[in-house]
Amino acid sequence: MPFLAFEGLDGSGKSTLMDRLEMSLKKNQIKIVRTREPGGTKLGDEIRQLILRTSGEAPTPRTELLLYQASRAQHVDQVIKPALSRGDWVLSDRFSASSIAFQAGGRAITEDDVEKLNHFSTQGTRPELTVLLDLPVEKSIERRNQREQKTGERADRMESEKNDFHQRVRDSFLKQAKQNPQTWLVLDAEKSTDQLMEILWEDLRRRGWVSLPL
Amino acid sequence: MPFLAFEGLDGSGKSTLMDRLEMSLKKNQIKIVRTREPGGTKLGDEIRQLILRTSGEAPTPRTELLLYQASRAQHVDQVIKPALSRGDWVLSDRFSASSIAFQAGGRAITEDDVEKLNHFSTQGTRPELTVLLDLPVEKSIERRNQREQKTGERADRMESEKNDFHQRVRDSFLKQAKQNPQTWLVLDAEKSTDQLMEILWEDLRRRGWVSLPL
Repeated sequence: MPFLAFEGLDGSGKSTLMDRLEMSLKKNQIKIVRTREPGGTKLGDEIRQLILRTSGEAPTPRTELLLYQASRAQHVDQVIKPALSRGDWVLSDRFSASSIAFQAGGRAITEDDVEKLNHFSTQGTRPELTVLLDLPVEKSIERRNQREQKTGERADRMESEKNDFHQRVRDSFLKQAKQNPQTWLVLDAEKSTDQLMEILWEDLRRRGWVSLPL
Repeated sequence: MPFLAFEGLDGSGKSTLMDRLEMSLKKNQIKIVRTREPGGTKLGDEIRQLILRTSGEAPTPRTELLLYQASRAQHVDQVIKPALSRGDWVLSDRFSASSIAFQAGGRAITEDDVEKLNHFSTQGTRPELTVLLDLPVEKSIERRNQREQKTGERADRMESEKNDFHQRVRDSFLKQAKQNPQTWLVLDAEKSTDQLMEILWEDLRRRGWVSLPL
């Protein structure tokens, strides 16, 4: 049924909001497939490793984009399309908008090239709704540092990029949202999870995808 | 200086002819970089493993093509362009023509899609000469079986495809050669290495890339 993508900088709270949405949908007997990019399949997770690791040979920008798209093609073919045709909801942590933001916004690849590759890898499968958790870059870095101190989890190769890279990524997400107001929901990631969940749920009700109140 | 790609079915003798050419070029004090696809870089070899292994999750056709292109982008950026700008010759075992043959000819992807991806991954870097070692499919399979018996080296995922797949690959190589007579040299792979080397060397002389006789 609906395919929802969650986008935003690291530390913007995508996972937390997805956890809450997953719980509420399950309470409403809605079957969901929760997934992520890069990854979502065994092969995709192996590709993810080649993209995000901080050791080994790093991909050049075009290689990086092609690896993301390879992971995406596998994800669409093996997970997303089958789930949607079974009638399940799909919640994906990142999807094609991330390639526009990170590889066109962040790197020096044209939006046109990224869009053509998105089209090839997805064969036109697009989220009905993209939820953007918008957060200033400094806050993102602050939250990432807190996570590192708490869990010992180190920044991956994309997270380790400079601040102006992440600023271009944020700007690209906001631009995409502005260009597609019908299919994007921009949330202020500094709000509490309770508040975010209420706004999101109201949006899903307005779209007729859920009927009961939260 | 010139960039040469060697194409053909498995067992067509690409490596043997490349060995001979490498020897002769070195005798002429010509600096060469010998490389291969998929692979040619450390990251490319890791991608190669994901494409060709017969265990683990297999890529779908679009994923397979995107992985080949990711390996190619890295190869062009890190190996081929630097070598050509140093003035070295580049000899590559397979290049973009293999994607046309295997993914458009062999699989169900359009030539147009493969060409666009080739263009993106190579940024227009093309071999000055593509040497096609043409061999009937039955002979290719015969030679591969002999190799397996001799060395114990098992067929990879592409080699394990059915005969009609390899027939479409051969047909595509021949079609590409016919469309580009100036930049392709078709050799009968059933000839001896000595004979093949003579024809190839004469071709290089005619192109003005080498001056001495073999």
